[in-house]
Amino acid sequence: MNMSGRCAACKYLRRRCPSDCILSPYFPSSDPQRFTSVNRIYGASNVAKMLQELIMPHLRAEAAETLRYEAQCRIQDLIYGCIGVISQLYINKYKIYTECRLAKTRAEIALMNSDGQEPPQAQVDQQI
Amino acid sequence: MNMSGRCAACKYLRRRCPSDCILSPYFPSSDPQRFTSVNRIYGASNVAKMLQELIMPHLRAEAAETLRYEAQCRIQDLIYGCIGVISQLYINKYKIYTECRLAKTRAEIALMNSDGQEPPQAQVDQQI
Repeated sequence: MNMSGRCAACKYLRRRCPSDCILSPYFPSSDPQRFTSVNRIYGASNVAKMLQELIMPHLRAEAAETLRYEAQCRIQDLIYGCIGVISQLYINKYKIYTECRLAKTRAEIALMNSDGQEPPQAQVDQQI
Repeated sequence: MNMSGRCAACKYLRRRCPSDCILSPYFPSSDPQRFTSVNRIYGASNVAKMLQELIMPHLRAEAAETLRYEAQCRIQDLIYGCIGVISQLYINKYKIYTECRLAKTRAEIALMNSDGQEPPQAQVDQQI
């Protein structure tokens, strides 16, 4: 255990940072905001519990990163969190799909009005 | 305070449910799983804190619902949570966009190969 090289979590919680600290690799003291965000939304013990459920260090790193992103979203938007991002993406997806269908229909009409060629076989018909 | 009409949270935490319980309207005893999910990921006190920061009951209801959704995503996917949904939506969005561009280009080529009409003015050119 040491007090000088404590991670951001152990520093924030004013405790010693054990050499096998589960939070230490993902919440370095150089970026205290990173821990503050996840601590505010999930609490340090819940974050530690979630990371402990994953064995592979690179998966823990991914989980720590997605938890940080979700926490940041929730801090910025307390009502919708990152569900706001998902909603916006759904709206954009349907907007693009509709514009695409419109462009395709226009092209087909233009072709049918030309010298009788078959409409182009566009690949955008599948359900989304 | 009463013990018989306790909400899912107070039942789970084996405590009395005050008449002004912040969790009661959003975590009814009829749906214990709903509370279990958010409790596992955020902890009851963090959920209560987040709901308390919102004044309007309908916004609290929205927040409780999005927290439940995020918690459910995280339980199903401990590494990516609902960021996995966001990633998939981004991939789909670019897939649709690419298919749309391809359809438009094919239509333009077909038109240029026909009787010399102008290509259709499709509205799918903007950046996404």
